[in-house]
Amino acid sequence: MDIAAVYHRPDSEMAYLRENGAFEIRLKVKHDDVSKVELLYGDPYGTKVNEKDEGTWEYETIDMDRSFITKLHDYYLAQVTLPLHRLQYAFLITDQKGTKWLYDDRKLVLATKESIAELTCFRMPYLHEIDRIDPPEWVKETVWYQIFPERFANGDKSNDPKGTLPWGSSEPSRDNFFGGDLKGIIDHLDYLKDLGITGLYLCPIFTAHSNHKYDTIDYFTIDPHFGDKKTFKRLVDEAHKRGMKVMLDAVFNHLGDFSMQWQDVIEHGQESRFASWFHINEFPVSYTKTDNDEFARDLTYEVFANTPHMPKLNTASREVQNYLHEIAAYWIKQFNIDAWRLDVANEIDHHFWRHFYSLTHYLKRDFYVLGEVWHNAQSWVNQHEFDGAMNYPFTETLNDGIVAKKISLSEMVSRLNEQLMLYRMPTNQVMLNSMDTHDTARLLTLCQGDKDLMRLTLTLMFLQIGSPCIYYGTEVGMAGDNDPGCRACMIWDKDKQDQKMLAFTKELIKLRKDYHRIFSYGTYTWQVDDDNQTLKLIRSKGEQQICAIFNLGEKPLKVTQKTPLLAQNLVQDQLGKHGFAIFG
Amino acid sequence: MDIAAVYHRPDSEMAYLRENGAFEIRLKVKHDDVSKVELLYGDPYGTKVNEKDEGTWEYETIDMDRSFITKLHDYYLAQVTLPLHRLQYAFLITDQKGTKWLYDDRKLVLATKESIAELTCFRMPYLHEIDRIDPPEWVKETVWYQIFPERFANGDKSNDPKGTLPWGSSEPSRDNFFGGDLKGIIDHLDYLKDLGITGLYLCPIFTAHSNHKYDTIDYFTIDPHFGDKKTFKRLVDEAHKRGMKVMLDAVFNHLGDFSMQWQDVIEHGQESRFASWFHINEFPVSYTKTDNDEFARDLTYEVFANTPHMPKLNTASREVQNYLHEIAAYWIKQFNIDAWRLDVANEIDHHFWRHFYSLTHYLKRDFYVLGEVWHNAQSWVNQHEFDGAMNYPFTETLNDGIVAKKISLSEMVSRLNEQLMLYRMPTNQVMLNSMDTHDTARLLTLCQGDKDLMRLTLTLMFLQIGSPCIYYGTEVGMAGDNDPGCRACMIWDKDKQDQKMLAFTKELIKLRKDYHRIFSYGTYTWQVDDDNQTLKLIRSKGEQQICAIFNLGEKPLKVTQKTPLLAQNLVQDQLGKHGFAIFG
Repeated sequence: MDIAAVYHRPDSEMAYLRENGAFEIRLKVKHDDVSKVELLYGDPYGTKVNEKDEGTWEYETIDMDRSFITKLHDYYLAQVTLPLHRLQYAFLITDQKGTKWLYDDRKLVLATKESIAELTCFRMPYLHEIDRIDPPEWVKETVWYQIFPERFANGDKSNDPKGTLPWGSSEPSRDNFFGGDLKGIIDHLDYLKDLGITGLYLCPIFTAHSNHKYDTIDYFTIDPHFGDKKTFKRLVDEAHKRGMKVMLDAVFNHLGDFSMQWQDVIEHGQESRFASWFHINEFPVSYTKTDNDEFARDLTYEVFANTPHMPKLNTASREVQNYLHEIAAYWIKQFNIDAWRLDVANEIDHHFWRHFYSLTHYLKRDFYVLGEVWHNAQSWVNQHEFDGAMNYPFTETLNDGIVAKKISLSEMVSRLNEQLMLYRMPTNQVMLNSMDTHDTARLLTLCQGDKDLMRLTLTLMFLQIGSPCIYYGTEVGMAGDNDPGCRACMIWDKDKQDQKMLAFTKELIKLRKDYHRIFSYGTYTWQVDDDNQTLKLIRSKGEQQICAIFNLGEKPLKVTQKTPLLAQNLVQDQLGKHGFAIFG
Repeated sequence: MDIAAVYHRPDSEMAYLRENGAFEIRLKVKHDDVSKVELLYGDPYGTKVNEKDEGTWEYETIDMDRSFITKLHDYYLAQVTLPLHRLQYAFLITDQKGTKWLYDDRKLVLATKESIAELTCFRMPYLHEIDRIDPPEWVKETVWYQIFPERFANGDKSNDPKGTLPWGSSEPSRDNFFGGDLKGIIDHLDYLKDLGITGLYLCPIFTAHSNHKYDTIDYFTIDPHFGDKKTFKRLVDEAHKRGMKVMLDAVFNHLGDFSMQWQDVIEHGQESRFASWFHINEFPVSYTKTDNDEFARDLTYEVFANTPHMPKLNTASREVQNYLHEIAAYWIKQFNIDAWRLDVANEIDHHFWRHFYSLTHYLKRDFYVLGEVWHNAQSWVNQHEFDGAMNYPFTETLNDGIVAKKISLSEMVSRLNEQLMLYRMPTNQVMLNSMDTHDTARLLTLCQGDKDLMRLTLTLMFLQIGSPCIYYGTEVGMAGDNDPGCRACMIWDKDKQDQKMLAFTKELIKLRKDYHRIFSYGTYTWQVDDDNQTLKLIRSKGEQQICAIFNLGEKPLKVTQKTPLLAQNLVQDQLGKHGFAIFG
């Protein structure tokens, strides 16, 4: 057995309290290397009382299940319940040759009567409910819709910025405006409800200079081109009436350089009240202007990326903390929002987010905090900082496997499984899964216009563990390259909308909601055939099971089951290229 | 190469900010499996500007050092410095056959021009000073002395409990008293200073029923048999005058059943103001008394271990939190203590400890929080909860290898190295290393009276990374079995003290302090010979190096170096059994 590959980490995503009071334990071993894994577990203070064994540890044994498989590793899982909320445990591993090994807190050795008697167990000393990672249930059942407000709908011409272009009259650029606003969103809430949406994710709406509003000037006001607080209140209330949650997007990593605070630093330098709000290495704050407005080499202050226009906030400053926390609280207390999506959240310190989490969840018990993290987000979701993260690794893996076909299907499945093993299962259930956002090319463009492939990809996404999110316009077949191309005006002209895609999206959302217990909470098993380019995903929960078959290959794929819940490109019992069928 | 064994975890003990502003990175691979590890690293937003490569990531490459070796794994380490405090990185691993592999945030693949161009790096998005794990410097340089107050010295006969036995007149038992007190400690501060001690670790001194005082009745009063607050103030002040820090021991996991709060619950049941302070499953609180007073099977409330006399506190209750945090603050603010040692700390929730850490370090910047954890303590020291932990795994490993000889020397060294790799290096430097405590048999007893072996073991302990601690009486050769045997009265009669052991301990402490830069901060390399039962430990810092040689075998060991800094059992150039020599 490859004993160097065996890994477990107590009090982490590999050992944690579940929502049902059970305790989940994972063990990682090399792929196809062991024949059986047993968990030895019991109360740390439990000892046998029969005469013969008196004083020796009293433990139980259960088999662990090989539940997630990657190219390199197999993950064995088990759940146990402890009446006294205390646990110690060790692993008994039988390799392919039948040799038994013992893995505990301090060693991995051959299992013998002596080594079992001398266990130094892994310990979970007490299972505290207060430490349990418990993302809100509603997120697990939500279908999100992401709106880039300047481009969704112009509901109020009176607040249009100077130079606003007629809706959809030209390509989106870095600095043009089309007049999208909050009233436009309100006007289309019924449309979204009809589509099946249960969560609105709005890109920033606070006063800012740009059309994307990530260069915040004032977090306490609605951008005047988007509307006012009265309108925003109505938006939240009307959304809630229709059973939709509302998530706002904020950038706490940096301010826009037009903000009052940064302007004060420019004016007063070291004497500014706000000098300690930023990371300034040298006064006066300055840089050499170049052709590339987003890139400065010789800044005397720290910024987001390399852009001189987004000075980084010093979140170790108590004043900055208070300021940002007040903002977070304000929109919850006064407007009853349900979630914060935090931009560039990974570049802010953990202290800040721990406080942020406590505050928001104190104000609203089932609040949702979503962090933008493009990489492994373990260190934010493994404790109470973010409930979930933007699941870009998931997006990229699906893209690489299905859309761009840069990696094999088995490699894709391996990475998806690996990704799920980075986090606790309740965290996986609230990761925000999307195929495109305002920061990426649109799915249809990535699919090079192949709408069958687009439908297949969306479907695959909707069957995953995690909270699915549709980027505005995807449902009517909008295309668009990377920013700014992906930020075009929403197509409202029915003749220009792809009605087939719209109907399909509706069906897909309905399916997700009809079977949400399976999709949100069910088991997750893949069958892959790289040669024929076919995929099967089986999800089940209790007696219920859903099986989905995908044909990524050129050859038609014979399907034996009848009457799919949803299908695409299925002619009689043959799935064509980029066809799929879902059976209940 | 065994690619299934390769492991790295960002933002953990494997990737963290050091005190010098450098960032330390570790990679785990199978033992003796790779020939070279390089770290590719740079700013996440850094791109090349030369025409050819424009837009590709600009990274640097450095070799990582194989710094810690276990039987199963090699740990490669590197430190890098990032001017913009941002980092992304990947590992380039060359195996024994010369094949190169690339390991990044999402995959482990063969290194090719293409795979290097498509890196999805590990990310440390911003290196925040506020998140740095920064245990106090003074602890790294402290030599501790642990005192069990009832048994150290009786300085004030007037406060002796009824039935106090004459000092040392009988074996210690679970319930006898000898009158040890705070005045007794004050009387011997000069003795401790002369010994070289720089930190006092006092077992509980608060009002309690038992002789060990772990069954706290009132945390705000000194046990009347130990003295009063005036005396305690004098103790702290006098210790500080002599350059000694003072650490108090508290049990926040449970109360004694004689405490006012628990008595109120017994009296008023569910109506008690304190009903929510505990974990009570059913009222009235009860259990069936048996012969074994420490063990109750049918408790209606949760307790420490299985003893009905120590009801577990509900630290999720805001009232309990406030109560315990007030206690923590009181002894710091009013008496200026330097450290808290927390009993059964692993059974209390993380929320509680995070708050506890903030509070204590806010009151005193370089405060030391030491948790009692007998197992892997990663989840408490990986964030700001405990600065360090009681290093029992270290103690047990040294015992198993050197004293009980249950494991080979190479196995012992392997486990010591593995243990160091569980934590950040600054954490290792403040782990409390001891060979015996009030909860274990005394070292001399474990050594079966072999004082050469005892000296060798103490020496080995003093040369480790971590803060060494001597249990009272060890220095004068006291023996004693597990609790209560290890809690005998301190021997003050010079004729009964082992003067040779005392002189030796003094020398050893002096050596530790003379070379503390090497011992606290230096590198750490072993050479082991299992056949001849010899060990060599090399510690170095800058130009300075210390080399220690230990003979655990029966045969004399030839030593070529001259003039040791400290030696035992060295006859001319031969080390006898259980002999050692330290060279500078």
